[in-house]
Parts: sequence; C-alpha cells; structure tokens
Amino acid sequence: MLVTLRPEANRAAVERELVAHGLWVTRLEGSSRPALWVEPQSAQLAREDLLAIDGVESVAAPASAHPRIDAQPACVPFGPIRLGTGAPAVLIAGPCSVESPEQIRRIAERVAGLGVQLLRGGAFKPRTSPYAFQGHGEAALGWLRDAATAHALGVVTEVMSPADARLVASYADVLQIGSRNMQNFALLRAVAAEGRPILLKRGMSASVEEWLLAGEYCLHHGAPNVVFCERGIRGFDPSTRNLLDLGAVALLAHVHHQPVIVDPSHALGRRDLIPALSRAAIAAGAAGLMLETHDDPGSALSDGPQALTGPMLADLVREVAGHEEAP
Amino acid sequence: MLVTLRPEANRAAVERELVAHGLWVTRLEGSSRPALWVEPQSAQLAREDLLAIDGVESVAAPASAHPRIDAQPACVPFGPIRLGTGAPAVLIAGPCSVESPEQIRRIAERVAGLGVQLLRGGAFKPRTSPYAFQGHGEAALGWLRDAATAHALGVVTEVMSPADARLVASYADVLQIGSRNMQNFALLRAVAAEGRPILLKRGMSASVEEWLLAGEYCLHHGAPNVVFCERGIRGFDPSTRNLLDLGAVALLAHVHHQPVIVDPSHALGRRDLIPALSRAAIAAGAAGLMLETHDDPGSALSDGPQALTGPMLADLVREVAGHEEAP
Amino acid sequence: MLVTLRPEANRAAVERELVAHGLWVTRLEGSSRPALWVEPQSAQLAREDLLAIDGVESVAAPASAHPRIDAQPACVPFGPIRLGTGAPAVLIAGPCSVESPEQIRRIAERVAGLGVQLLRGGAFKPRTSPYAFQGHGEAALGWLRDAATAHALGVVTEVMSPADARLVASYADVLQIGSRNMQNFALLRAVAAEGRPILLKRGMSASVEEWLLAGEYCLHHGAPNVVFCERGIRGFDPSTRNLLDLGAVALLAHVHHQPVIVDPSHALGRRDLIPALSRAAIAAGAAGLMLETHDDPGSALSDGPQALTGPMLADLVREVAGHEEAP
Amino acid sequence: MLVTLRPEANRAAVERELVAHGLWVTRLEGSSRPALWVEPQSAQLAREDLLAIDGVESVAAPASAHPRIDAQPACVPFGPIRLGTGAPAVLIAGPCSVESPEQIRRIAERVAGLGVQLLRGGAFKPRTSPYAFQGHGEAALGWLRDAATAHALGVVTEVMSPADARLVASYADVLQIGSRNMQNFALLRAVAAEGRPILLKRGMSASVEEWLLAGEYCLHHGAPNVVFCERGIRGFDPSTRNLLDLGAVALLAHVHHQPVIVDPSHALGRRDLIPALSRAAIAAGAAGLMLETHDDPGSALSDGPQALTGPMLADLVREVAGHEEAP
Repeated sequence: MLVTLRPEANRAAVERELVAHGLWVTRLEGSSRPALWVEPQSAQLAREDLLAIDGVESVAAPASAHPRIDAQPACVPFGPIRLGTGAPAVLIAGPCSVESPEQIRRIAERVAGLGVQLLRGGAFKPRTSPYAFQGHGEAALGWLRDAATAHALGVVTEVMSPADARLVASYADVLQIGSRNMQNFALLRAVAAEGRPILLKRGMSASVEEWLLAGEYCLHHGAPNVVFCERGIRGFDPSTRNLLDLGAVALLAHVHHQPVIVDPSHALGRRDLIPALSRAAIAAGAAGLMLETHDDPGSALSDGPQALTGPMLADLVREVAGHEEAP
Repeated sequence: MLVTLRPEANRAAVERELVAHGLWVTRLEGSSRPALWVEPQSAQLAREDLLAIDGVESVAAPASAHPRIDAQPACVPFGPIRLGTGAPAVLIAGPCSVESPEQIRRIAERVAGLGVQLLRGGAFKPRTSPYAFQGHGEAALGWLRDAATAHALGVVTEVMSPADARLVASYADVLQIGSRNMQNFALLRAVAAEGRPILLKRGMSASVEEWLLAGEYCLHHGAPNVVFCERGIRGFDPSTRNLLDLGAVALLAHVHHQPVIVDPSHALGRRDLIPALSRAAIAAGAAGLMLETHDDPGSALSDGPQALTGPMLADLVREVAGHEEAP
Repeated sequence: MLVTLRPEANRAAVERELVAHGLWVTRLEGSSRPALWVEPQSAQLAREDLLAIDGVESVAAPASAHPRIDAQPACVPFGPIRLGTGAPAVLIAGPCSVESPEQIRRIAERVAGLGVQLLRGGAFKPRTSPYAFQGHGEAALGWLRDAATAHALGVVTEVMSPADARLVASYADVLQIGSRNMQNFALLRAVAAEGRPILLKRGMSASVEEWLLAGEYCLHHGAPNVVFCERGIRGFDPSTRNLLDLGAVALLAHVHHQPVIVDPSHALGRRDLIPALSRAAIAAGAAGLMLETHDDPGSALSDGPQALTGPMLADLVREVAGHEEAP
Repeated sequence: MLVTLRPEANRAAVERELVAHGLWVTRLEGSSRPALWVEPQSAQLAREDLLAIDGVESVAAPASAHPRIDAQPACVPFGPIRLGTGAPAVLIAGPCSVESPEQIRRIAERVAGLGVQLLRGGAFKPRTSPYAFQGHGEAALGWLRDAATAHALGVVTEVMSPADARLVASYADVLQIGSRNMQNFALLRAVAAEGRPILLKRGMSASVEEWLLAGEYCLHHGAPNVVFCERGIRGFDPSTRNLLDLGAVALLAHVHHQPVIVDPSHALGRRDLIPALSRAAIAAGAAGLMLETHDDPGSALSDGPQALTGPMLADLVREVAGHEEAP
C-alpha cells in the first residue's frame, strides 16, 4: 500500500502514527512526493482512517483479486445449519473412509448422540499410492446419506473428479475439495456449478492469498458460499506430520472475516494431540472442527492412527460444545 | 522403532493392534524374523506395552540423544516462580527494547498491576541490520532490574555473547537465548555455566529434535533447567510474519512433558492477532506467554507494530489469568 | 533399512564399513539380535553388497511403493524422439500461452531453426485468479499442432481436466500434468489411459517419493512412460519466485535412474537467471530443458517477464546443444 | 519499487515496456498520480533506464540496507588468491574435522597435488549433540596450519566463539562463519575485527536479503571482504539432507555481483551426488567449491558418509579445474 504525503508533511510524524496503528512502514526514496510503502501483511486500516492522518495526500493499493470472497458474510449457510462468526461451533465427524453400511450407521448414531451436526466420510479417496484403498465410490455415497438422514445429520464428502460432481451433489449437503485439489481449477468449476456450499481445504503449500483466490473461483463459478478448512501445511520438521497453521486461521477469521474450520486429524496424523489442537483451533477463531473417528481404529481401511475412539470424541465434543465464536 | 515378531506370530493382528494404539507402521521385508518399523513421530507407547502384545518378541530403538531433557520435570523453578504443568499460566511482559529508566519503570508498574510475574526487555538486541538500534547494553540491565525489583517482578532478558553471560546473570533471574542463537553452542555453554534457568527460543528452522538437543547442551553445561519458547518458525507464506507452530507446543507439553511458553508477538509481528493466538497457545498446552507491550508503540525503538497497548494487554491478561495448565 | 548382525559380529566394524559406503547409520538398542538402522535417504547399496559384509545376517526394508517406476528405463520414447541417459539433451520451447495462429507459427519456425525438438504452448491454462486469461482451448490446440507439424516438431501441452484428455491427446505427442495437478488422481488416471508419454511436473511441495508415486499412478493406469519435470518448489525466500531443486534432479537422474527435465522458466519467473540455471540443470543430470520464449514478451498474455527473447533462446540453445547426458 | 507516471501517460504502454524488461508489475489504485508497483524480486533495471521510458515521472525505492556489500567488487582477495568473477574456480578441500597431525598432513599433500588452493578442516566443531566430538581445538589449528604451509595452501577454518577469533586468526587465512551462526551478531563483530576475509555460510533458513545483511555486519565491523557460501537450506523433503539453492547462487553471482562459493558436501550429506551438484554449482555461477574429503571415511570422526575419497576428489577436480567464471 502506497501512502503519499503532502510536500509539507512531517514524514517522521506520519511514520510514527502508521506504526502506532500496527503497520510495517518503509520509506521510498526518489519519488516526486514523499512516499511510504506499507507492507500488505501488516495490520489492516481503512483507507479513510489513513487519509485522515495529518499530512497524508493519497493512499493507493492494488485492487483486491478476490472481490466476491471479500463480500462473503462471516456466517454462511452450511448444509442444514449456519457456520461462522456468531454461530455456535460446528462439529463435523465421521470415519476417514465409508467402509460399509453398518460401519457408517454405527458411527452416525454415535456422533449424532454427541450433538455433532454433520457426518463426514470418504467415498472417493485421494491416496498417495495407486495400490491403496481408493474408496467404495457411489455405493458409499448411498450408505453415507442413509446413515446421516436416519440421524438428522448433514453430509460432507469429497469430490475428486469434475465428472462426479453431479453425482456427489445428489447425496451430499456440502461438497469438499481436498487439499491436493485446491488449485484443480477444472474441479473447482464443476463443483461450484452444483450450487452447494463448498468446504475448501487449503493446499499443502498454498499461501492464504492463493487459498482466497481458489475460493474466488468457487464463488465466480456458482457456489453460494465457501468455507475454508485448514488441515496442516507442509513444514520442514517431521516431528508432526503436517504443520497446523493457526495463525492463518486467525487471519482468515479476524482480518478477512471468512468462515473457517480446522481439521486437526489430518494435520497431526496421531490422535493423542488432537484434543489439544482442537481447543487451540477454536481459541484461534475457527468456527468449527472436522474430526475423524472410528469404532475400531486398528481395522480402519485408512488413517487408523489418527481416528479418535468413541470416548475420546465424546470428551472432546463436551469441551467445545456450546462454544460461540466471538463477534 | 523396530518391533520384531516371533516366527509364529500373526503379523496382521500385531499390525492392527499397533495401529489401534496410534502408531504408524511399515512392514520390513527380508529380515530373519518378521519385523515392523514404527515411525518415531507417531504416538508414544511404553516399551512394556509393546512387549505385552501377543507375538512381539523384542522392541528396539535408538537411545535418546537427550537423556537430561527427558529427565527434566514438567514443572520447574523459573526465577521467582514455578512454570509448567500444574502451575498457573505464567505471564512475561515488557517492551521489546529497554529504552530509558522512565519507560521501563512505567511499564513495570503497569504490568505488575495486571498480575504479570516477570518483566522482559532487551538490553542487547539482535538486529538483522547493523544500522538498527542495538540496545542500551549494561545501563539498560540496571534500569530493567530496578524497575522489576520495585514491583516484585522477575527479570528475563537475552544474552547475545558468551562474554556477557556473567554480567547479564548478575541482573536477571532468567537468561534468554534468542532464536538466532539456538545453535550457538559457545553461547549455550557460557550461559548454562551461570546456573540460572534458561529460556530457550526455538530457531527459525529448528526441528523439535534439534531444539531438545540445544536444551540438552544447556543442562549438560550446568543450567538447572530449561524452558522452551516457541516464537514462530520460517514458513513459505508471507501472510503472517512467521508461522506459530502450536503443534510443536502440544508435542512438547503433552508428549515430551517439557515446560514450554509461547511468544506470539514475534510470531506475528502485528498486534491485532496476538490475543487470538495467545488464547490458542494456552489451549494447546503452553504453560505461559511472553508478550511485548509499549506505552507509545509509534515511538518504540524496535518492533512497534507488534507491541500491545496497555488496554490490549490488560484485556488479554484478564482472559488467560488464573488459567491452570491441565495435569 | 534394517541391518541385523550375527550375535558374534563386531558391530563397530560393520558400522565403519557402512559409513565408508556412504550410509547414515543409527544403532538400535533392545533387539534380540544386534541391529542397525540405515536412513533411506543415504547412499543406495545393493542388498547383496550389504549381505557380503562380514557379520551381517539379514537386510530388511519396506517393499518399494513404486515398482513400475523402478522398472522404467532411464531413456524413454518421448514423442518423436528419445529422452534420458545416453540421448542428447532434449529441448522443449514455446510460449506460455498459444495466443494466435500467427504467434505460434512464428515461434515454431524460430525454435525449429535452433534445433529444438518439441514445441510447447498452453491451450488450457491453470491460473491462480479466475479473472486471468484461461487459454484459447481447443482452437489453440489446432494452431499448436499445425505450427509444430509444419516444422517437424513434437507437441507438449497441458491437460487440465479428465474430460479433455482424449481431445488433447488427439493433438499432442506428450501430455503434460501441471504442478498444481500432480496429485489430481482423477486426472492422472484419465491422461494415463490415453497411452501417450506423460510429462509430470512436480507439485509445489511434493516430496520426491510422492512424485514417484504420482508417476506410478500414470504407469499403473496405462501410460507407456513418464518423464519427470522439476519446475521449482515452494521455499521460504521471496528472493527467487520458486526454489529450483537440482538436488532432486540429481537424485532422480543418478540414483533412481529416471528421465527428468527441468523447467527453469517457472522456477525463476525472470528471464535474466534462466541461462545460468539451464546450464546448471544439465550439469546436475537433467536430460532436457523446457523453456518459455516469446517474440514480444511485453505483450504476452501470461508470464511475459520469464519469456526468453529470440536472441536469448538462440544463445542458450547453442550452449547446451549436442550435450549428451553421461551414462 | 514505485514507478509514478505523468498524468497524461499511457499506463498500458508503460506496463508493456516494464514487462518486456522482465519486471513484475502491479497497478496501484487510488494514488494522486497513476502509479505502478514493481516487485523487488523481478529483474533489476537501472533507475535511469526506467526514467527513460516515455511517460515515467519518477522512480522510488527503499534505500539499500547493505551499501557496503553493494560496493564490494565481484572478485576479492581470499587468503593467498583471488576469488570471484574473472578468476579461475577456487577449490577448498579437506576433512570435516582435523583429527591428527598425520591425517591432515596426508590430506594436505594429496589435495595440493590436485591443484586445490585452500585447505579446510574443523578445529572447533558445531555439533547438534553435546555428546558428539567437538574438535581438537587449538592443537588442531597448529596441525592444520603446518600441513597447509608445507604445501603452500591457504587455510580456511571456522570460528565458533568471539573469544576464539584472535586465536583462529593467528592460524588461518580465511575465517569461516558457520551456518548456525550467520546471525550470531557478537561473533560477526569479533571475527570481522580480525581484518581477515570471511567465508560466510548461509543460515539454514536465511533469506538472501538476511544473508547480505549479515555480510554487511562483517564489512561494517572491519572485515576487508566477505565471500558467501551456500551449503543447502532447510526444505520439506527428506529425500536430500538439505536443499541446495542454486537459484540463490545465480542471484548472488549474476544480479548482486558477489563472490559466492558452494559447499555441496553439507548440502547433500552423501558423497554419490556431490560430483553432479559441484558441476551444477559452477554452471550456476559459483566462483568456487568447498569439498570434504577423507582418506578413510568409515573412520572419520564426523560426517564420514559425505567425505569424498581420494579418487573421487581427483576426478572432480579434473572436471572443474581451469574453469573460469564468465565475466
């Protein structure tokens, strides 16, 4: 952001005022008028407030690259409920993969009893290896929908191919874009065209700006709204599987005023740390959590080590339930 | 970790049990006995519990590289107080730089009134540019000590050179190692030899294992205890200045049982996000917070944009005060 | 990799021999037989060579997750030519986007005159913003094919959607998977089914292992061969747009014996550094280069700052032409 | 960099011209005069060239933070020789640690016979673990100096503590700052004060700008010149130990016109990939190489797996010897 001063302005005084407002300021040398550059990653200040500072002549910035996202409300419809600032924390839970009608029915019953609002479960699974279990496909969609409906839960599930968007939309309330597909633009277009809310997972190395732009694709191509889902990014330290970026969650929630939820299961890959990070996510500004759970994690077809057992999920839900995202 | 099975063991059954315990398991092919490799970053299970699994013959692992840290209690003396699991959340606050006797006196009075226990302030400042303010040195140490003593606060301040360790130790209760010096082994040795608790900031790209090893250096060379301080690591996204790694905080607190505090001020570089991340840090398992505050951030000699104003700090302290780290 | 020793073996002597072979070795404590763990990222040694070391009883490792890639030859058919170890360095050049029949015809003529073997050009463009130019689609495919055929060039172009795979394959000799789609498994399947060689760009934060697994998907689903393309990964330093990982190129070429090419244009985003990094890529083991060029970079519809001008490309081609990848 | 246009200028035409010069340009909206922002990481263009563009009124930028480095010539004295653009490639070789008088004497004789100009060897070793071999200290300095002098080699060795700077300077021609100490400002000051050339290794997560600023510290505090040494940075992929950033090498050499050498031994940690990356480093613009070698790598006290054997080093030196860095 460029702040141009009047010729007679006291540059040092303007700088002090900008710093006092939390801005990172650099002097530019050589311009026809005294000028200061404000890093876009420092605090946000309305243009009018900057123009009101004594000595400031004009304030210039690039146009936002994501006007539809900027205009999205902080609380949006999300399947059967609303999600975002002012609404109670939303809980999405279920197994990594939908394995059988019985499995998903048992889990749906259990999580509904805890007050969870949406059921998750993979029918089409993105797997790093072509030899790993790839999901039960359309059959699993039916099992998932039936189990959810029986317990008045909404359904969130992932779409992996543009060709499947219509099919998945006929079963699910919310369509999930996985982290590996955050910049799969053909998929974003096809899924957006279904007119359902989208749960947009952050890519493993996506910047917040790229993530917002992926959201802009969704809104531009017809999605009624987009909820952002942080699930851990790629870091240099193998001590935790991924790096849960709660700073980005706070930035989205408190500065960009976007609805955002956190998936601690994929971030950590191990269930023992999930309760602590779930609490932290809510404290940072997340409007909800997406949690993996399984009745028999040792026999799960995928991601068993990160699945919460029934009692662990129950304890966690009790802790965060009723929590209301601060306005 | 290597799990060797008896020849007659049911390998699939053992694998299921390991996964059920949250372990990441890989089959090894070609060994004289059936063998499974367990990733060290998955859940921790005591050797006895693994040996108790039917079919397991032996369990092997590398010896810990940091036995003294492993033996450190989860709650340790820290200047005038105790810090860690079971103790109330510790608050350290003060300016980035000690600028004058009056400045630090005013701030000490203010933070003491809020219930903060230790006063921070830089006398020797590590600055990326040789032309930036480098601190008032020994004079600042005296101003800091006097201000703290007048309000019954402990003193935390950074040591930048082995030659200054003795001097700083004569003024401070806790000696801080900055993130740029986490692997400055000459400094670790000199500071440890002073026999004071050490606040060890994590290096910008240090793995948790390297951080624990730096702590081992401190204990090996005479420090009575080490408190780890997460302050944000280097990430790929400029949207936030650094990347606050609360997964590592949870790992240290809940798995390694180490005392750990969080410095959200340096992680974010902007004051507006500090309250949210402070709450999240405590929720993740931090035993305390280190916060920068200034009475007139616009005139601060360093890091003004991230300094909390008096009212912001007061609100934040109210929120986290009395919080007790879960056992 | 697990090396188990005979009970009577001299563990220190075995360790010395392993280190002498370039292996990173860690002692395991607690196993029924003395055992050493060898990091998979250290030098590769054939199992027989390890078993031949005095005192070694058995050697165990996980089965390779990508057997088809492991079996792929180091030199493969690639459109009209062969690419890989033993073949001359392959040059692919062309504009970022195919903008008009005239533009691509002029460029085809120019690059063919330099000895370039394949023409590149985007018909479907993955763009971070939905409001940026998205490519001229099928029309551009026709212009690209005609221009290439007129000058006996092969065609490489990107497929962005499974639905387009058949269409693009009817125009192109080599089908490109972009870095944002490296783990778009629906796309990998659809493109592989066309039976054409695949140019598989590395994802922005993909590990080499994940990249090889994406290649395994392609071979498993019908691609005759896969050529890997390094184009810069995400790093923490904004000084260069991306981080060109020539260590990974050397690893693929010299350890995994895979055909690999480098795209320095996207790695750097600026043309002035492309010649130096092109030379470095070939020196590191790349079997070819993919280069962006434009006759009027200031008017390019995308990526103008990284497009080489005609004279720059001519100089660069002269330098690397005739270079033969060492066996 | 801010480019302000005259009111009557054709903004689109100016943008085209800037892009044609390789600049990344963003429009700013809201300024009193039409204004364009040019990313500092795109191509460098002299201010006069920008002012010569029709319609440009003024060009403004922050003052350089490292004026002394900017003024440093591209070829500098470096112990007994000169290093940089226009001079032959410089070779520094030797063991990781100086282990005994005999060891270093044998290696000195061997490398001198190959035409290597400087001998390296660690007397004070920065080790991640306090229990690893920490170097033979002053005794090793004497052995290193004697071995070098006997074969007319210069000496490069690391300083780890300000207190040792004088001592090491009495033995060495070039003083090395290790990567863990790149921002150990007390050490930079003490070493610079000795008036010897400094070999400044890049920190594991240092940006190029931070590296240049660390160099500025050295020149500001008395060093006659600074040579930058890239040795691999921290990346997310364990496939190679570190990530050798040859883009940064090209940037330093070709844009900043700084003398830069590459240490591929520490970047990779394994000797098999060192020849390929050494060739690549020279191709990217490195003015020299620093290589680890050992007569019996299996018995090395540190870093055996990355030490080149005698024959490997001989082959590599033959390949790069006589290479002259292009002007």
